[in-house]
Amino acid sequence: MPPRLIAHLGHVEILTPRPEDSLRFFTDVLGLNETTREGQSVYLRGWGEWSHHSLQLTEAPRPGIGHIGWRTWSPDDLETAVQRVEARDVGRGWVDENIGHGPAFRFVSPGGHTHELFWEDEKYVAPPGEESPYPNRPQRYRPRGVAPRQLDHVTVMTKDPKGHADWFRDTLGSTFTEYTVLDEHSDVVVFAMSTFNEKSHDLGLVLDQTEVSGRLHHFAWWVDSRDELLRAADILLNADIPIEFGPGRHGMGEQDYLYVREPGGVRVEVNTGGYRLYVPDWETKRWVPSQGSNVFYRNIPMPASMLDATPPATPSAKDEVNPWAASSVH
Amino acid sequence: MPPRLIAHLGHVEILTPRPEDSLRFFTDVLGLNETTREGQSVYLRGWGEWSHHSLQLTEAPRPGIGHIGWRTWSPDDLETAVQRVEARDVGRGWVDENIGHGPAFRFVSPGGHTHELFWEDEKYVAPPGEESPYPNRPQRYRPRGVAPRQLDHVTVMTKDPKGHADWFRDTLGSTFTEYTVLDEHSDVVVFAMSTFNEKSHDLGLVLDQTEVSGRLHHFAWWVDSRDELLRAADILLNADIPIEFGPGRHGMGEQDYLYVREPGGVRVEVNTGGYRLYVPDWETKRWVPSQGSNVFYRNIPMPASMLDATPPATPSAKDEVNPWAASSVH
Amino acid sequence: MPPRLIAHLGHVEILTPRPEDSLRFFTDVLGLNETTREGQSVYLRGWGEWSHHSLQLTEAPRPGIGHIGWRTWSPDDLETAVQRVEARDVGRGWVDENIGHGPAFRFVSPGGHTHELFWEDEKYVAPPGEESPYPNRPQRYRPRGVAPRQLDHVTVMTKDPKGHADWFRDTLGSTFTEYTVLDEHSDVVVFAMSTFNEKSHDLGLVLDQTEVSGRLHHFAWWVDSRDELLRAADILLNADIPIEFGPGRHGMGEQDYLYVREPGGVRVEVNTGGYRLYVPDWETKRWVPSQGSNVFYRNIPMPASMLDATPPATPSAKDEVNPWAASSVH
Amino acid sequence: MPPRLIAHLGHVEILTPRPEDSLRFFTDVLGLNETTREGQSVYLRGWGEWSHHSLQLTEAPRPGIGHIGWRTWSPDDLETAVQRVEARDVGRGWVDENIGHGPAFRFVSPGGHTHELFWEDEKYVAPPGEESPYPNRPQRYRPRGVAPRQLDHVTVMTKDPKGHADWFRDTLGSTFTEYTVLDEHSDVVVFAMSTFNEKSHDLGLVLDQTEVSGRLHHFAWWVDSRDELLRAADILLNADIPIEFGPGRHGMGEQDYLYVREPGGVRVEVNTGGYRLYVPDWETKRWVPSQGSNVFYRNIPMPASMLDATPPATPSAKDEVNPWAASSVH
Repeated sequence: MPPRLIAHLGHVEILTPRPEDSLRFFTDVLGLNETTREGQSVYLRGWGEWSHHSLQLTEAPRPGIGHIGWRTWSPDDLETAVQRVEARDVGRGWVDENIGHGPAFRFVSPGGHTHELFWEDEKYVAPPGEESPYPNRPQRYRPRGVAPRQLDHVTVMTKDPKGHADWFRDTLGSTFTEYTVLDEHSDVVVFAMSTFNEKSHDLGLVLDQTEVSGRLHHFAWWVDSRDELLRAADILLNADIPIEFGPGRHGMGEQDYLYVREPGGVRVEVNTGGYRLYVPDWETKRWVPSQGSNVFYRNIPMPASMLDATPPATPSAKDEVNPWAASSVH
Repeated sequence: MPPRLIAHLGHVEILTPRPEDSLRFFTDVLGLNETTREGQSVYLRGWGEWSHHSLQLTEAPRPGIGHIGWRTWSPDDLETAVQRVEARDVGRGWVDENIGHGPAFRFVSPGGHTHELFWEDEKYVAPPGEESPYPNRPQRYRPRGVAPRQLDHVTVMTKDPKGHADWFRDTLGSTFTEYTVLDEHSDVVVFAMSTFNEKSHDLGLVLDQTEVSGRLHHFAWWVDSRDELLRAADILLNADIPIEFGPGRHGMGEQDYLYVREPGGVRVEVNTGGYRLYVPDWETKRWVPSQGSNVFYRNIPMPASMLDATPPATPSAKDEVNPWAASSVH
Repeated sequence: MPPRLIAHLGHVEILTPRPEDSLRFFTDVLGLNETTREGQSVYLRGWGEWSHHSLQLTEAPRPGIGHIGWRTWSPDDLETAVQRVEARDVGRGWVDENIGHGPAFRFVSPGGHTHELFWEDEKYVAPPGEESPYPNRPQRYRPRGVAPRQLDHVTVMTKDPKGHADWFRDTLGSTFTEYTVLDEHSDVVVFAMSTFNEKSHDLGLVLDQTEVSGRLHHFAWWVDSRDELLRAADILLNADIPIEFGPGRHGMGEQDYLYVREPGGVRVEVNTGGYRLYVPDWETKRWVPSQGSNVFYRNIPMPASMLDATPPATPSAKDEVNPWAASSVH
Repeated sequence: MPPRLIAHLGHVEILTPRPEDSLRFFTDVLGLNETTREGQSVYLRGWGEWSHHSLQLTEAPRPGIGHIGWRTWSPDDLETAVQRVEARDVGRGWVDENIGHGPAFRFVSPGGHTHELFWEDEKYVAPPGEESPYPNRPQRYRPRGVAPRQLDHVTVMTKDPKGHADWFRDTLGSTFTEYTVLDEHSDVVVFAMSTFNEKSHDLGLVLDQTEVSGRLHHFAWWVDSRDELLRAADILLNADIPIEFGPGRHGMGEQDYLYVREPGGVRVEVNTGGYRLYVPDWETKRWVPSQGSNVFYRNIPMPASMLDATPPATPSAKDEVNPWAASSVH
């Protein structure tokens, strides 16, 4: 197992068939800030983020995930990470020209998702008047809507959540923190969590029971407190955005959550709380759902809709690579 | 600069001339849990901690800090860390017999404080009936008093906070996150923060303007929310413990704080909040106090008492090593 | 409509077939304080309450409600209230000897519940060492378990929630704040709320579809913040008390809630938040469940168990007065 | 002592010499909503308020308070209240034409402030698209800036806070909740609190040591949680509004506070928390400052600037009626 080669989840590219509505959701309701636009993409970030963007919102025929960007700890770690990924024979090569960051090495993970590794990073520069009065913030705090501080994690669908978490650990040095099996008599892992830092996960892995690969489950934005999460729920409902699940607390990760769908169809989580994990020899925790892995309070089921991915599986699809993910790989 | 060799602050040893009163404070009021006793020490931990202890409370003639224990990321990192410390010529050798953890290598940092590096760690085992109903917690949650989840950081006094932060970065791979200078026309650094993780600091460094070395400023315990911090203030005041400073928010680290003195004289912080820092090429931030480094709200001064260390300097002391720190080094 | 004759809900008498277990729940887990014991009853209160008790816990063959005590605004208002109740022909006469308060006039409300009206009130006197350091609190704040500040409201079952709310308004001057009908095409009121103060309700009224009268739905304890409510949930689950419903928010009253069953079988709510209503000509609000009357977040149903009362209806019962309520009327 | 004749504080009229800047503060930063404009006044309200307005912002040569509007419980109570005020010989007669409410009877309280009593009230009607999806809210929740829910209280300067609180109690039936004397050996009351409801105060009374009468200390807006109060502080500072005092907690009323000055010079509080007082025979509580009447945490003084009123006293003023208050009485 290598050391942690990745510093953090840098950005996600989200695909939307309704780019204007999606953009309005992410800016007016969720309260992200636009940095720039280029081609079919708009680049956005939370008010507490130091990089050019953490969300690339791209017009596409169907909703889904384009790619997931991971920033390494150093140029050397990028080199090591690329070597380790190439040794796994899943590399797709370098993309040299990128908006907001330097050369990125793309690869496809076991679940069929496109990831990229990069080191060079363009810092966000606040425009005049928007500089923070505090040196340790990237911009002035003028919250709008939910106003999350930063991107938190991304959760994808895969036929083998445990194997996928093992793969990330063995290839890039993440910690495999927790997983849930179907029930007490099963070894079928339905959810697994992988992290490169103190959070329970920056990568979540949900069981995909279809033959489609490369699908997204959701991506999540961090707010500072449970009180802000409840305020977010109120804001979302008053913007006529139904809440699919929550507000509640997961046992896994001990995180407070709520889930909505943005207008393009992608599931978006707002989350907060959770433990902060510093134990270097952490033993992966195993849950059964009755212990409260999904619902800490153990009194409601997760709604069936939460098993759906983005995009939904098409009936004819058979071991198919999600074409919308693929479409964004050059 | 090496990679981060340290996983986290493992424990601190606190010295008290009033061991029974101090113990009552840490258990009944602060709400820590006792693991064991041995010799002149009682070993304690927060309810969310996986290790045997995070606080060693030791009877001594004067209050102060005994030593600070850092857990490395791996056995290899321990070896590397020891080599790097020895290359700095500040090593004091191995202590083989320890309560709650394996062999530890001790060294004295530029401020005259005794630290130790260790890898082997004894996990806390909850007694029957106290096992958590959730697999990702080390024990049942039955909060008493303030009930912090875990040890957060330790802040020591030093004649050169910036040099000390540089030293930790260059020797052990920490990040030097932020510092404050005396005023706009000064290069005198009065506070500096060093971290091995996403927190603004696990080691704080306050300017010591005396000739005494090895003194402690405070150590801090983490609660989950700003609401719990305000609740902690109420509990402390109702236990007749005056609050020296706070509740408030520091600009540096954006952390909510309160400070009290435990009966032996050591300053104890309860803290929460703060940003979560994942930027691998973080540029150290520079503050002047008028920007709100100490008081985010910029409307009250920090009380003069907060400049005092533990133990207070004695008039005759001249470039003296704090004997109580020294006394706990075997 | 008379002016508000009642100052506040003074106390409730709860019946339990498991008095020791119930007492342990109310003191160790919920964190109420015992004032005294007398006969088959233990008298308890929250830390922020000025009266002798707000809960009388009484041993009885079956769980349920004994009586509900309302304190008037003045001796004159007590006289007026008694006259108005007697004019309704539901008076049951005076009880002169009471623990913790003066003479009380008992009556039976339309739902078959026993209430009492009283003015003279014995104040709680903190024992030595437990006096508050603050003049505006009745005792020192040393929270244990959930530690609610005070009794909030009581909710009973009735065949006619709307008629019952009208009755209280017309007889004693309460405000009928909100109600919910079965669905858009129905006039069947399933829940109604009545208040004597700025809260959405101090008396809740749930539709009882059986022929049994005098049953209790739940009674509720107030905590100061949504954060404390989530902390309460954690404490309850870790005390092996399942949470029947919540934590969540009701649309009605905009109150955050959670519901558990104490060991004797009575449903206990912990609640917080909600609007504060000062409008003297408030128009009663009408809800349909799809608007979120029960679940503000509009995404889960209330569990079926929440329709049950305490005690549960017996199959043979036919328009029966709840004998356990009756048994506590002298 | 009469029963409570007043239902609640209806509105305050605030005078500003910088009407545009003040309006921008109250709408963009504090987040109130404009209902209408008329003459030299703009009428505003919080998102949770049912009336036409709770703030009348009026252009005037100097900052201060115009008048304070109290809504009675009923038309009969208005009649009774007017009689009682006239019996005190401080009536100033009826104002028949008002924006947002019906005829109002004006009087001047012992401190020289103009108050009005009214019953008829124009309800706020949300414009199309802004109707709340919840029946128990007056408008859709789309928070902007601090976004307080409603007006909370007003605090004025007077030469005799205790006498003034007695006057309101004896004339209109308020509760005199708490007061603070200068120190342990003094009977000089520096602050007193009067309330018509469960809050510690809807009218605060601060000692005015000058000869000027009719001055304002501050007026306050309610947010739902301590977390929102801290968020408010962040928003205000990032809007370059210095915080004069707070965030903190008063011992009196147990309220969390922060104070700023709006651009015209009037002190504005954002507050939350506090006990909820239902005791009908409440004994007025007496404090000395060392008990924490101003600062619950007992560790900082209130800043000297907090002794200032609006407008500041002019050197030549001698037992002068505040002319700006007078100017708004027709």
